[in-house]
Amino acid sequence: MSESCAFCKIARKEAPASQVYEDEKVIAFLSIHPINIGHTLVVPKKHYENIYEIPEEEVAYLYKIVKKIAHAVTKAVDAEGIRIVQNNGEAAGQVIFHMHVHIIPMNKNQTWVHRARMRDADALEDDAKRIRQLI
Amino acid sequence: MSESCAFCKIARKEAPASQVYEDEKVIAFLSIHPINIGHTLVVPKKHYENIYEIPEEEVAYLYKIVKKIAHAVTKAVDAEGIRIVQNNGEAAGQVIFHMHVHIIPMNKNQTWVHRARMRDADALEDDAKRIRQLI
Repeated sequence: MSESCAFCKIARKEAPASQVYEDEKVIAFLSIHPINIGHTLVVPKKHYENIYEIPEEEVAYLYKIVKKIAHAVTKAVDAEGIRIVQNNGEAAGQVIFHMHVHIIPMNKNQTWVHRARMRDADALEDDAKRIRQLI
Repeated sequence: MSESCAFCKIARKEAPASQVYEDEKVIAFLSIHPINIGHTLVVPKKHYENIYEIPEEEVAYLYKIVKKIAHAVTKAVDAEGIRIVQNNGEAAGQVIFHMHVHIIPMNKNQTWVHRARMRDADALEDDAKRIRQLI
């Protein structure tokens, strides 16, 4: 664990998040800068910077959970499509250097937005509740 | 298997591809429309349209292979970053409706290009050779 890492703090419950899922190894919560409503981050609790660092068995487990949550997000927001993205390195758009997988609901004619505006905490909590009920 | 599916044809060796990896369940080859040199697609041989259809155990295995190939692609093209993307549905940018994971080398200041220009077969084969040697 890294003391200053934002996602380690969420995993340790030292920082708030609109959580949609948790088990021993993985936590999932809503992005505070969603590209679309329902934009969820799926995160290993253990601190790995990227796909190079995370062990093979843990990446396999992580994506099982991504699949499960992708179903729930799709239903919760009635998404037309879902983009699943994992960025490694600043050049790839990684901002928090703790490995995470984005589940991003996409609509037709929507362009890729790299950094979307913030969604307020109450709205996020409502979104999270809808998703939690479908997992 | 789908008769007309482009990726099923590649998996059956009925269509050419610049292959970088193959095992019993998964095949990986270079995109003919690379966003950057080394842009690789990792594909289950069995026909699943998307993350909703593919069984949990198979998505787990697929991403173990993605991790392995991501290392090789990064080294082969000396990538500054790697973006790993899996699109579900036309609204999310899915073009071939056979599940596939993109491994996309990214460089600083590069913007997301949704559909890049074609790379010729000889150049792709050279790229594939460099990656194969690193897997």
